Amino acid sequence: MPTSSAPVKIAVLGCGTVGTQVVRLLLEQADDLAARVGAPVDLAGVYVRDTSKPRDAVVPVGLLTSDAEALVDQADVVVELMGGMEPARALILRALARGAAVVTANKALLATHGAELHEAADAAGADLYYEAAVAGAIPLVRPVRESLAGDRVTKILGIVNGTTNYVLDEMTTKGLNYDDVVAEAQRLGYAEADPTADVGGHDAAAKAAILASLAFHQRVALDDVYCEGITEVTADDIIAAKETGRVIKLLAVAEQADAGVTVRVHPALLPKDHPLANVRGAFNAVFVEAEAAGELMFYGQGAGGAPTASAVLGDVVSVARHKANGGKGPRESNYARHEVLPMDAAMTRYAVRMSVADRPGVLAQVASIFAEHEVGIESVRQMAGRGHAGLILSTHRAPESALRATVEALRGADSVNDVWSVLRIEGEA
Amino acid sequence: MPTSSAPVKIAVLGCGTVGTQVVRLLLEQADDLAARVGAPVDLAGVYVRDTSKPRDAVVPVGLLTSDAEALVDQADVVVELMGGMEPARALILRALARGAAVVTANKALLATHGAELHEAADAAGADLYYEAAVAGAIPLVRPVRESLAGDRVTKILGIVNGTTNYVLDEMTTKGLNYDDVVAEAQRLGYAEADPTADVGGHDAAAKAAILASLAFHQRVALDDVYCEGITEVTADDIIAAKETGRVIKLLAVAEQADAGVTVRVHPALLPKDHPLANVRGAFNAVFVEAEAAGELMFYGQGAGGAPTASAVLGDVVSVARHKANGGKGPRESNYARHEVLPMDAAMTRYAVRMSVADRPGVLAQVASIFAEHEVGIESVRQMAGRGHAGLILSTHRAPESALRATVEALRGADSVNDVWSVLRIEGEA
Repeated sequence: MPTSSAPVKIAVLGCGTVGTQVVRLLLEQADDLAARVGAPVDLAGVYVRDTSKPRDAVVPVGLLTSDAEALVDQADVVVELMGGMEPARALILRALARGAAVVTANKALLATHGAELHEAADAAGADLYYEAAVAGAIPLVRPVRESLAGDRVTKILGIVNGTTNYVLDEMTTKGLNYDDVVAEAQRLGYAEADPTADVGGHDAAAKAAILASLAFHQRVALDDVYCEGITEVTADDIIAAKETGRVIKLLAVAEQADAGVTVRVHPALLPKDHPLANVRGAFNAVFVEAEAAGELMFYGQGAGGAPTASAVLGDVVSVARHKANGGKGPRESNYARHEVLPMDAAMTRYAVRMSVADRPGVLAQVASIFAEHEVGIESVRQMAGRGHAGLILSTHRAPESALRATVEALRGADSVNDVWSVLRIEGEA
Repeated sequence: MPTSSAPVKIAVLGCGTVGTQVVRLLLEQADDLAARVGAPVDLAGVYVRDTSKPRDAVVPVGLLTSDAEALVDQADVVVELMGGMEPARALILRALARGAAVVTANKALLATHGAELHEAADAAGADLYYEAAVAGAIPLVRPVRESLAGDRVTKILGIVNGTTNYVLDEMTTKGLNYDDVVAEAQRLGYAEADPTADVGGHDAAAKAAILASLAFHQRVALDDVYCEGITEVTADDIIAAKETGRVIKLLAVAEQADAGVTVRVHPALLPKDHPLANVRGAFNAVFVEAEAAGELMFYGQGAGGAPTASAVLGDVVSVARHKANGGKGPRESNYARHEVLPMDAAMTRYAVRMSVADRPGVLAQVASIFAEHEVGIESVRQMAGRGHAGLILSTHRAPESALRATVEALRGADSVNDVWSVLRIEGEA
């Protein structure tokens, strides 16, 4: 399709798995992209630290440069795929200050310095897009920011980390222990040699901060997110979950209550017929509850070169179209000032699994401890053992602080041998 | 939040279930909407045929008018929720000609007159948005049009009609007959007194035309869509599906092949672990395959006043924001010219269920008929009966024309008593 406008010049910073795929798509689909943008889309250059390192054949050697600043300074659109804090942050700020649009997949940077970057974009009247930073290929930022712009999001539950979803899935379907599954996942390349960022919930926490910012129209930073990983989840927890008709998933939860919002990442029990319960392996999914729209779910690949590149390219088309039309997209709304509540104020339901003495009166003592802390019991399930009894108590909604005090009191009670686990329950009324 | 721009005037045409909810949200969330739009959003009036008819208390009587043209002529944004062809078409064209933005939920109008409406919008430089027309509350138009703008959609499979999904679901979970479930659904208000538009697949076909237009960047009209409803699906079909590990869903399918695109609506077999297989009751879901993004799914409520109103409001915010900024959104891309192929050229897999004579050599004869028509057999499953045998043959991918010729030949073969059903298989490699 012939286009009359001047070309939009794209700079790509970083050429790892995602960068390589972005370069491939920019070159292979140049005609389609030009038709969608309304102007030719020219790849001006690709910043890499070492231009002599061998690259995938799809990356033209002549486009490589080790001078990131010079590249940024000639671009209309800067695509940041380096990861990490610096020099990514400085280069994005440099690009925005020039009025260039920025597309980034850098969740850690956004979760840490999001407010600064968005302010810089607003000040310069420049676009800052980041669809690929939250859940890989899944279109989520645009639907939440624009399609639900006339609605009120009340809650988000997300499976946003493929590694932990894979590990919990393998533990569930194969009955394996956490350590064995992680070791196997490392062998297969599904988990990093140091898996802390994934299994500790930190990657999910960065995404939770971005999701909450979007959903609640205000900046939520990584520090505001309560974070608990999957390292303490045992095979017994998974068996017990099954017995109560539930599965365990690592969830990113952002919730709006009267007093403020809570944002948290932790393993949670979900009923097995919940739409998120069937999300398998490395797939991601985000479940959204909105006042008018009701329940929505977005599902797809959360990582990988080509899927992430698809999300990056969608953003590139949007911001390049704005550039070709001499404008910019809607400013990200940031007008709300809900208090971000501490974890103690989070309200949810809990399943407390414990070993108690096998004698009359024990249940009465346990129940009275819950009652003293005003935590309502929804159901009790007993499992016989040798000389002791296993109990699973599911509670009604209660504040985290009350639940913690209850568990402390349980641990001190003479009829309670041990509190094995406390898991939050989500996705049930 | 203070806004400096002039108010954006909204006209709502039609005040049924969806219109009432749109009016409610426009009035209740006026402050939030102003913050998101960057200008006050004023409801200028609501067109109804009969202003004296009693309305829900959320609709201010003073805003009602029976003069649609006068209302349209003073609006910046016209929200069309009347349904039907006329006067909806004429009023939308009138609004666009004035340069007003139009938001509509009218799938039948878009599927029939979409080309004319989009041309009028392009000619006037006006926005035409229709998120609510495809799958109710599910954000789908924006993600496909914008988030996947740098990718290539190869296939869409959608559950886009809640009534038929409910009917098939009840037949599956309760083992009931089609007629009994439809009668019960009518009694409960889940199906219309005349359910033809739903069970005949016509409602899904209109949505398929819109989805295909979006996905393949060209106009696909209702006449281009092959349409087969669920009226012929029997309890036996559902039992046989279960025995082969599948479920039956009414699917809207849009697929791109080398020779062109096919767009079709029909009952189809899906493997029971496919993400669409677990979509229950009145929920809708659309599964998208794209070259780079891989598999995506969008899930939510496909109908209902508040959910549909949420999608309408998202569009209203977008077009009102463009109005407040003196611009319009991106023109819908319409540059592709794939041939829309007839159903005979559609390629898919099939499950053929038939009664054959219970004697040696029968399978050889049946298999040779498939071979003559170059339809590969993937698996054969036998079910014993009295004096006959039931067979389910699953084929490899074959063109519809070859399958039809095969079935005709089977019907004439002396060892085949009857061909009970032919169902297309989707969602398997």
